[in-house]
Amino acid sequence: MTNVIKQEVNIELIRSEEALALVKQEIDKTLSKSPLIIREYTTHLMASQGKFIRAVSVIICAENAEGLVHKNAVKIAAAIEILHLATLVHDDIIDNAELRRGDVTLQKKYGRRTAVICGDYLLSVALRMSASIENKKDYLDLALPDYVGKVCLGELNQHINNGNIELSTYRYLKIISGKTAALFEASFFAGAIFSGCQEAEVKSYRRLGYHIGMIFQLTDDCIDFEETVEGANKPVQSDYEQGVITLPLIHALSQISEFRDQAKAQTITRADINAAVIKAGGLKFTRKMVDKFYHKSIKIIDELSLSPHKKEQLMGILKKASRLS
Amino acid sequence: MTNVIKQEVNIELIRSEEALALVKQEIDKTLSKSPLIIREYTTHLMASQGKFIRAVSVIICAENAEGLVHKNAVKIAAAIEILHLATLVHDDIIDNAELRRGDVTLQKKYGRRTAVICGDYLLSVALRMSASIENKKDYLDLALPDYVGKVCLGELNQHINNGNIELSTYRYLKIISGKTAALFEASFFAGAIFSGCQEAEVKSYRRLGYHIGMIFQLTDDCIDFEETVEGANKPVQSDYEQGVITLPLIHALSQISEFRDQAKAQTITRADINAAVIKAGGLKFTRKMVDKFYHKSIKIIDELSLSPHKKEQLMGILKKASRLS
Repeated sequence: MTNVIKQEVNIELIRSEEALALVKQEIDKTLSKSPLIIREYTTHLMASQGKFIRAVSVIICAENAEGLVHKNAVKIAAAIEILHLATLVHDDIIDNAELRRGDVTLQKKYGRRTAVICGDYLLSVALRMSASIENKKDYLDLALPDYVGKVCLGELNQHINNGNIELSTYRYLKIISGKTAALFEASFFAGAIFSGCQEAEVKSYRRLGYHIGMIFQLTDDCIDFEETVEGANKPVQSDYEQGVITLPLIHALSQISEFRDQAKAQTITRADINAAVIKAGGLKFTRKMVDKFYHKSIKIIDELSLSPHKKEQLMGILKKASRLS
Repeated sequence: MTNVIKQEVNIELIRSEEALALVKQEIDKTLSKSPLIIREYTTHLMASQGKFIRAVSVIICAENAEGLVHKNAVKIAAAIEILHLATLVHDDIIDNAELRRGDVTLQKKYGRRTAVICGDYLLSVALRMSASIENKKDYLDLALPDYVGKVCLGELNQHINNGNIELSTYRYLKIISGKTAALFEASFFAGAIFSGCQEAEVKSYRRLGYHIGMIFQLTDDCIDFEETVEGANKPVQSDYEQGVITLPLIHALSQISEFRDQAKAQTITRADINAAVIKAGGLKFTRKMVDKFYHKSIKIIDELSLSPHKKEQLMGILKKASRLS
């Protein structure tokens, strides 16, 4: 009798490499069923993705002591990745961006209307997918719509503070904790639920996800500045050009009072900003903040009861988020 | 022991008038907890609403044989109404409308960015609310995200066919079955689940909701034309001005070949359209379609096992959708 039950359970468990391949298949399958216009849109988006750091996080966190993953984790991982795609689509409208990392954005290419609907559609697909898993209790604990709400509030606060040179470090960290860290937290949370660990450990995974999300965004902020400084001729539309004020600049504004006065009078140029950020050590300040989250992450990883393989994998995500690998 | 159980069950049941008052309270409470910018937005939107036809549908369909409603139906009713608000917000961006029924739209007043985020936020609030009900099995049967997907596909198809003078009646009915009828179907479906009726009856309620949604939209299409014809001086931006081609015009295009040729050559004016719709009997044709759905609805209402009070209430919704009351 015990054997029968064990066998039944094992059918549901797969190796994590297999799970990751299935996530990609699941995303492709779902998107290929979408209407043509949405497919064109998502193909374009997927081409500039490919890292799937959120889906990888779900799968790795979902590994049990034997290194196996419950197959339902595949659906949640795919759902979170599609949710991320949805936020990218709407981000472009919110930012009114014509370029993203040097590529023409979709709202520029296909029009704002398509972008709004495409984002809504992807959002509904993601939520439908996560609601379609067989053991629905797992999904209910996760409450993915809560995370969607957090992402929206982050976006909203970023929008409200567009061009706000008085934005404090504290408020900025709150914005990115919604905008970026919430979905990382959801990924780690979802994975932990599937791993079957205790509630206290689930909480640790959630915090780890949050920290890694913060690292991911703050590192992004630094890269955005560095790219602008290094390659001023490239057709990159930086955060600042879109009115998005990030931590390196916030630090410069708080440190150099003449620069702040200049900014208030709206007489600063891109070159002024770069000079002020360098002078104030804005990038160093941001990297230090990243370090804090990095060390908090290491502490959590050390405290969790992990197999050597899982520990190595979690360290891999942490390094990827910090762009150290 | 039986008494204790019965008492416990009864605590969950309330009168439908009370349920409706609670729906309004629930919506107010939820929106009042939103960030200021979203509150301003929704206050503006709510002022032009007030009928709550979808929420009323949920509550009425949810009435059991004793005329009582399960209190969880309140949350689903509020969630569906907020979902409807979300679609209105994104509709304005999709339509690029500056006016809606003579009022300045929110995307015109607050900007497109706020509109995108506000719609996303409302969507997440609605899905979170419907996921927060205690007896979660009811919610899972309902699969609200599926309906969000249907609404998106309807919107998308409407957008693809913007200005398409070759649009067929069949294709048009498919568009509005997603765009409008899906949420009515969801409302009736949700109510039926709570009423505790048999599966076959739940299906009938769903179909009834679908028919009533079709009636609601087609009647709206007629009103849009009548208002334009009657009050050409009013600052009403009609469907046609937004490129939305509705059934009265589709019929005129299919009936009058010279008019179709003129439209292809893009030489038609608003006056030409009104004249052609009147000449072809486009409004009569649309009203006839409404009649078909009306009679199908009556047939379903007659076949359902309903208390006289519930029957009267359902007839009330049917008449409201047809603008007969």
